Amino acid sequence: MVQRVAVIGAGPSGLTCVKACLDEGMEPTCFESSDDIGGLWKFKEVSEPNRASIYRSLTINIWKEMMCYSDFPIPADYPNYMHHSKILKYFRMYAEHFKMLQHIRFQTSVKKVTQRPDFSRTGQWEVVTENKDGLEERHIFDAVICCSGHFNYPNLPLKDFPGIETFEGKYFHSWDYKGPEDMHGKRVVVIGIGNSGGDIAVEGSRVAEQVYLSTRSGAWVIRQVSDNGLPVDRFNTRFVHVMFKLLPMSFLNWLGEKKLNAMYDHAVYGLKPKHRLFSQIPVINDDLPFKILSGSVLVKPNLKEIRGSTVVFDDGSTAENVDLIVFATGYNYDFPYLPKHVMYKSGHRVGLYKHVFPPVLEQPTLAIVGFIHSDGSIMPQAEMQARFVTRVFKGHKKLPSNQTMIKAVEKDTRNIEKNYVVSRLTPLQVDFVEYMDDLAQDIGVRPSLLWLFLTDFPLFMRVFWGPITAYQYRLMGPGKWNGARRAIFTQLDRMYQPLRTRQLGPRESSTAGRLFKWSLLLVAGGSAFYYIQVHNPTLIPTLMSKLRPQTV
Amino acid sequence: MVQRVAVIGAGPSGLTCVKACLDEGMEPTCFESSDDIGGLWKFKEVSEPNRASIYRSLTINIWKEMMCYSDFPIPADYPNYMHHSKILKYFRMYAEHFKMLQHIRFQTSVKKVTQRPDFSRTGQWEVVTENKDGLEERHIFDAVICCSGHFNYPNLPLKDFPGIETFEGKYFHSWDYKGPEDMHGKRVVVIGIGNSGGDIAVEGSRVAEQVYLSTRSGAWVIRQVSDNGLPVDRFNTRFVHVMFKLLPMSFLNWLGEKKLNAMYDHAVYGLKPKHRLFSQIPVINDDLPFKILSGSVLVKPNLKEIRGSTVVFDDGSTAENVDLIVFATGYNYDFPYLPKHVMYKSGHRVGLYKHVFPPVLEQPTLAIVGFIHSDGSIMPQAEMQARFVTRVFKGHKKLPSNQTMIKAVEKDTRNIEKNYVVSRLTPLQVDFVEYMDDLAQDIGVRPSLLWLFLTDFPLFMRVFWGPITAYQYRLMGPGKWNGARRAIFTQLDRMYQPLRTRQLGPRESSTAGRLFKWSLLLVAGGSAFYYIQVHNPTLIPTLMSKLRPQTV
Repeated sequence: MVQRVAVIGAGPSGLTCVKACLDEGMEPTCFESSDDIGGLWKFKEVSEPNRASIYRSLTINIWKEMMCYSDFPIPADYPNYMHHSKILKYFRMYAEHFKMLQHIRFQTSVKKVTQRPDFSRTGQWEVVTENKDGLEERHIFDAVICCSGHFNYPNLPLKDFPGIETFEGKYFHSWDYKGPEDMHGKRVVVIGIGNSGGDIAVEGSRVAEQVYLSTRSGAWVIRQVSDNGLPVDRFNTRFVHVMFKLLPMSFLNWLGEKKLNAMYDHAVYGLKPKHRLFSQIPVINDDLPFKILSGSVLVKPNLKEIRGSTVVFDDGSTAENVDLIVFATGYNYDFPYLPKHVMYKSGHRVGLYKHVFPPVLEQPTLAIVGFIHSDGSIMPQAEMQARFVTRVFKGHKKLPSNQTMIKAVEKDTRNIEKNYVVSRLTPLQVDFVEYMDDLAQDIGVRPSLLWLFLTDFPLFMRVFWGPITAYQYRLMGPGKWNGARRAIFTQLDRMYQPLRTRQLGPRESSTAGRLFKWSLLLVAGGSAFYYIQVHNPTLIPTLMSKLRPQTV
Repeated sequence: MVQRVAVIGAGPSGLTCVKACLDEGMEPTCFESSDDIGGLWKFKEVSEPNRASIYRSLTINIWKEMMCYSDFPIPADYPNYMHHSKILKYFRMYAEHFKMLQHIRFQTSVKKVTQRPDFSRTGQWEVVTENKDGLEERHIFDAVICCSGHFNYPNLPLKDFPGIETFEGKYFHSWDYKGPEDMHGKRVVVIGIGNSGGDIAVEGSRVAEQVYLSTRSGAWVIRQVSDNGLPVDRFNTRFVHVMFKLLPMSFLNWLGEKKLNAMYDHAVYGLKPKHRLFSQIPVINDDLPFKILSGSVLVKPNLKEIRGSTVVFDDGSTAENVDLIVFATGYNYDFPYLPKHVMYKSGHRVGLYKHVFPPVLEQPTLAIVGFIHSDGSIMPQAEMQARFVTRVFKGHKKLPSNQTMIKAVEKDTRNIEKNYVVSRLTPLQVDFVEYMDDLAQDIGVRPSLLWLFLTDFPLFMRVFWGPITAYQYRLMGPGKWNGARRAIFTQLDRMYQPLRTRQLGPRESSTAGRLFKWSLLLVAGGSAFYYIQVHNPTLIPTLMSKLRPQTV
């Protein structure tokens, strides 16, 4: 029976794992190598080796109602898309509210995690840690959850860029990027059009002489400011999810791409990728279109070679006098403290059962949490994983046999490779809703739409038509939270509240608009009347006579 | 007969006046107080007194095809919206191509312009200039064109902001703003939501701790990246202009506001003004919406008072610990070198006949060019004014009597006050197309749609459905340019060209899309067939038999 759990890392995933352990009555000990919580969301002026890094201006690209933990809504007055400083504040509130801090050992890094000799019976692990003074300690834990993240090791494939050794300017990986200070008046090439590449290109272009954004395969780029100015995630509803199940993917791709192209034609903008919209997580960038239209960012094909200060692209075009190359080429993942044999390799990726459990161990006492790529926020997904993992640790949920788990993992791999453009760098691609629902089903917290429809129709309406916020997974079952229903009913209030900074007079509809609507109604009514009169001249008099009070 | 013309200022208006004088065979002398051409578009790291000033990142908000002079298209590879450095380059090309530089006397400012004693007969002016060494010169000119601009004198109405003397932070006018360097980590209040206020708020918010954007009356905010990513000005067509003439303004306002609100609801965003969309030139800002949604810019009502470092707004809400206030409160205009009596005051504004000629002079030898606010670019409008002015100077076009001109000016004032939200600061508000057409009519260069329709249908199509670029006013009449037709036929190429930086494979339409379209067609065709068969079963066989080859 698992009681003592080691949680490695106190980032967004580690924190919620600590909470889940506490919720299940276990004793978590969280080892955090830095001096603060928050993981990658803790901004540092200088990047630190083997640790994720963000830039000064980073604002999260997930709506606050979709990024928060399921039982801890973000304060109503916080903005809809939060700067990293506010996200850290939120994590601090979360950690303090649920009394997690006392379970975290800061400045303590995990050097080694090994199975105890009696692992096959006890499932126990030996964990070797080192504190800031270099003091090593050995601990024994009933279970281990790894939340050390997957943005720690910059992927800098210099061999793919012939001539880089002749380059006369400076180059660095986006991991090293903090702000555009060094780009004033410079000529900059950014390689890679992920979210980082897009952000750095846009930010750099505000001060640089010229920014080139080189992309091998292009990208679909979406705006956070969606229809009517609402957060784009607000439209991620169960209804939409059902449509995605019912309609053919090629039609959905066509429809989605049409809508994106109506904002700005991806072919005209040189962004259009070979892959279809829904086969890769799109890039999120509200400012890029105007930067392209005003020429401060020039979209270029893949880099072919570098000659001195000249960068040559695949189409033969060049960027001359380049001062700086930024490699926004993503991250490699690694769990250096884990024995190699516990990881199961499946196709292009590390294969984990339900994206959490290595399927090859005799005991299910090791889990990896937060190690996914998806179209949703990591926070609620890591939380759901943590709830699932702790349910398994406690024995409330049994995992299938190793063989069955391996089969499931292989099936996942095939599905991922079929549905997504995958790479070595995107280990575990999941569909947010599907994944959340699947884990929730296993835990017993998946909201039953039928039950809601029958017992609480107003709630059903919000669950079905509203955004799929994580509160939905606190309505019933283990870990039920009494505030969940209210949180769902007030989620749109929390969206509007931070925008209410300048009061307007009472909303009046325009005269022209009203006139227009009434005219339409009149024309429609008139036409109907005319049609009925022509085709059934007795209908109206008959109806009228029926309505007339009868004389006795 | 006017021969020698003084042009005051070598900015966008002054340059085109020099050219117009040359075109009409006159001798222009352009006095420019600074050491370069370009006027406000010449960026300076430190603002200079009595001279317009721009900030480092400024990008023009008019599409290149709509901002260029009518006989000098902007190079095809220049971006659609140009940074000030590129605009200056364009002006340099313009000035060099038409050999204007030799007519410009740099570092020579105009101190005084007075009528000669024999003005009523000769129309001549005495112009006193001062060079950089303080040396004064007196010149006699047959005519004077003032192009000294109207963004030279910051409007800083401190008395409207009670308590400003208690303010503990720094404050300055947007005229002093060069970049956000001093805003790092600061709390900033920007007053005024014109284009400058919006730009400074957005740019500041990227580094500031918090930016408040205070607006008395709100604003309609539009994006430059319009439908399909095309420049919004591309949709400013003669067809649209005709619709504006035909449809009631209240309906157009309703329609336009609906479209804007679909991008982001101006009420939700706290931006909604009391005035309707088309009664004021909208603010142009592509980045503001996301800044509001992510809370880095908070829209606030008018500033009520200042108490130490606290700014109190009209609704009683406050901004605390404010470090910096930026007054984006516009500009006053002044022509300090002109005698007061030549200016005619009409309502809220200086009244000029056709927004060019003071209506009170005995001789039409003084003109003000570029002194307008409009929904279009100043460049082509100043050019049209210059062409009109020089036609008048040369005697090809007679002005009406002073009385008639004053009547026309008063009528203009009434129209402006009726159609626009006016202020002391917006002296001369005009509708771009209407104004261009009106002056063009006077000069004899207004394109005749009927004539084009009958003689050159492809050109007619482009003139009617395409953007109203200034090339249209070089198709016929005095100043006709042989390249005009070609410039119109290639204007969209010049729009696409700078975007062609990454080649895509051949454009393929999607299978799903094609299937969808064919299904629609099939259903429609099937329904039609069914309908005909039911209502007129003999029609199709009859038609078929008629089509069948007849046997003899």
